[in-house]
Amino acid sequence: MSRIEFDLIDWLRTQVAGRKEVPLGIGDDGALLELDPHTAVIVTDMLLDGVHFDLKTVPPFLAGRKALAVNLSDIAAMGAEAVAAFVSVAIPKGAGSKFAHEVHQGIMNLAAQYNVVLAGGDTNTWSGPFVVNVAVVGQVKKGREFRRSAGKSGDLLLVTGALGGSITGRHLTFEPCLKEASWLQAWGHVHATIDVSDGLAADLHHVAKESGVRAVVDESAIPVHPDAAGSTLTERRVSAVSDGEDFELLFSIPADSRESLFGSWPFSRALTVIGELDIGAGCFWRHPDGSQSPMLPQGWVHEF
Amino acid sequence: MSRIEFDLIDWLRTQVAGRKEVPLGIGDDGALLELDPHTAVIVTDMLLDGVHFDLKTVPPFLAGRKALAVNLSDIAAMGAEAVAAFVSVAIPKGAGSKFAHEVHQGIMNLAAQYNVVLAGGDTNTWSGPFVVNVAVVGQVKKGREFRRSAGKSGDLLLVTGALGGSITGRHLTFEPCLKEASWLQAWGHVHATIDVSDGLAADLHHVAKESGVRAVVDESAIPVHPDAAGSTLTERRVSAVSDGEDFELLFSIPADSRESLFGSWPFSRALTVIGELDIGAGCFWRHPDGSQSPMLPQGWVHEF
Repeated sequence: MSRIEFDLIDWLRTQVAGRKEVPLGIGDDGALLELDPHTAVIVTDMLLDGVHFDLKTVPPFLAGRKALAVNLSDIAAMGAEAVAAFVSVAIPKGAGSKFAHEVHQGIMNLAAQYNVVLAGGDTNTWSGPFVVNVAVVGQVKKGREFRRSAGKSGDLLLVTGALGGSITGRHLTFEPCLKEASWLQAWGHVHATIDVSDGLAADLHHVAKESGVRAVVDESAIPVHPDAAGSTLTERRVSAVSDGEDFELLFSIPADSRESLFGSWPFSRALTVIGELDIGAGCFWRHPDGSQSPMLPQGWVHEF
Repeated sequence: MSRIEFDLIDWLRTQVAGRKEVPLGIGDDGALLELDPHTAVIVTDMLLDGVHFDLKTVPPFLAGRKALAVNLSDIAAMGAEAVAAFVSVAIPKGAGSKFAHEVHQGIMNLAAQYNVVLAGGDTNTWSGPFVVNVAVVGQVKKGREFRRSAGKSGDLLLVTGALGGSITGRHLTFEPCLKEASWLQAWGHVHATIDVSDGLAADLHHVAKESGVRAVVDESAIPVHPDAAGSTLTERRVSAVSDGEDFELLFSIPADSRESLFGSWPFSRALTVIGELDIGAGCFWRHPDGSQSPMLPQGWVHEF
């Protein structure tokens, strides 16, 4: 480790608040977590300069914030509570101590907002671009996790918020749906859940495949965000379902729970029924004339 | 995600063996772990092409193996059992599917050897060099973890194996001390423990500082590996204590447990008493004439 790495770790140890589930955090070979009697939920995401953000225009603290936020979105999609975060970074040589501190400040500000303890990590310097990997450990009551595979024929499909055009800024500043997931957990009737990261079309394919059901989405029901790209409604809908990085929740509920959900949903974040699950396989659009056509999993796919 | 990323994940799901503590692994937004009634231990390390290995000469499966092995070394240093691994990779564009598979094969071979489940991760492609981050979740009986801070005045200092020159090959092929740690856990008299990653001198400073003790090491007691660099004994001792990446265990025990330990140690891996802990602070060499001099924390420090 370099001097900057030691200094960063010493600084982090003074900054980090604790919580009872984390009896040992930064400073040993590993961290300890006491989650009794909960099940541990583990998620991880790696973010790369030039792929998930561009440091030529994005400040380091927003890059750090996003690295934690995308993981918290996964924790929300599991119906869990976030407990501890583990942050590994590769800092470009010459970026200096200030850069590393700003990245971690962005992480810690968001962590504090959701009572997440920064409990460990790894700090490196190298000649390559900036890399940050975050792993988050959460907890959920045993058997109460939200799985992608829990969708059932007859379920209604819903999505929170509005979709499309997150690249114009929301992908850096979005609030992960932890509060909404916690509320849905207490509400108790959620079946399949996934967060919209690859794009609604791509992520819906995961739900349909894992649940062994057919998904039908009303073309006209898609909540299109004002940031979505395109000059025609059709173009803007394509943006909404394929851009990705919306980090909204896509989930299913029994049809007879609709009234209960909408009657008690306490959030300003929108909630929209976009379709339903049926017997069969695959994902389909339902057009205004009632006809259906296959939905391609054209989400955020970058080939190489 | 690209086609290669989807294909890799599908392949991994067919390759991964389970264990009862991991009811849900690859394929959802997160993994589930049931560690009741154990405490969870979480470690993470990020490895970078050109820093921790050089893919110009190192095959991808050894890079993958090392990425898991260094984490298992941390789990061993906590006195824990490894349960599940989470692997994030950034694959260089053009490296192709074969490269990604080989990296994961190296990880999975070692994982199988130690009954570790590959339970999740994140796969990316980019224009930068290869990056791999591994996080491992382990388990330890409550209150039985090995901490760096548990050293006591009067303890003997020990190290497993021999040190120095790991860069010539052992840093890629070493066996993490999981079996030795498990045995020490059952033996029951271990105080402070750390794995030798930054170099014995640097890592001993961590133990002394965290334990609030003074460490004294007999210069002539250092077990020097045949791979250590240098033509004189002094040069080779410097290599042994400063090269780093030995991934041996450095630990302390009560002086009166020495006979019990050496009388029952069942491993071919060497075990050497190198010094002791005392009241005070800092790390010191004891020379053959009985005099002492300060030990610099000159381990594996790369400045930038």
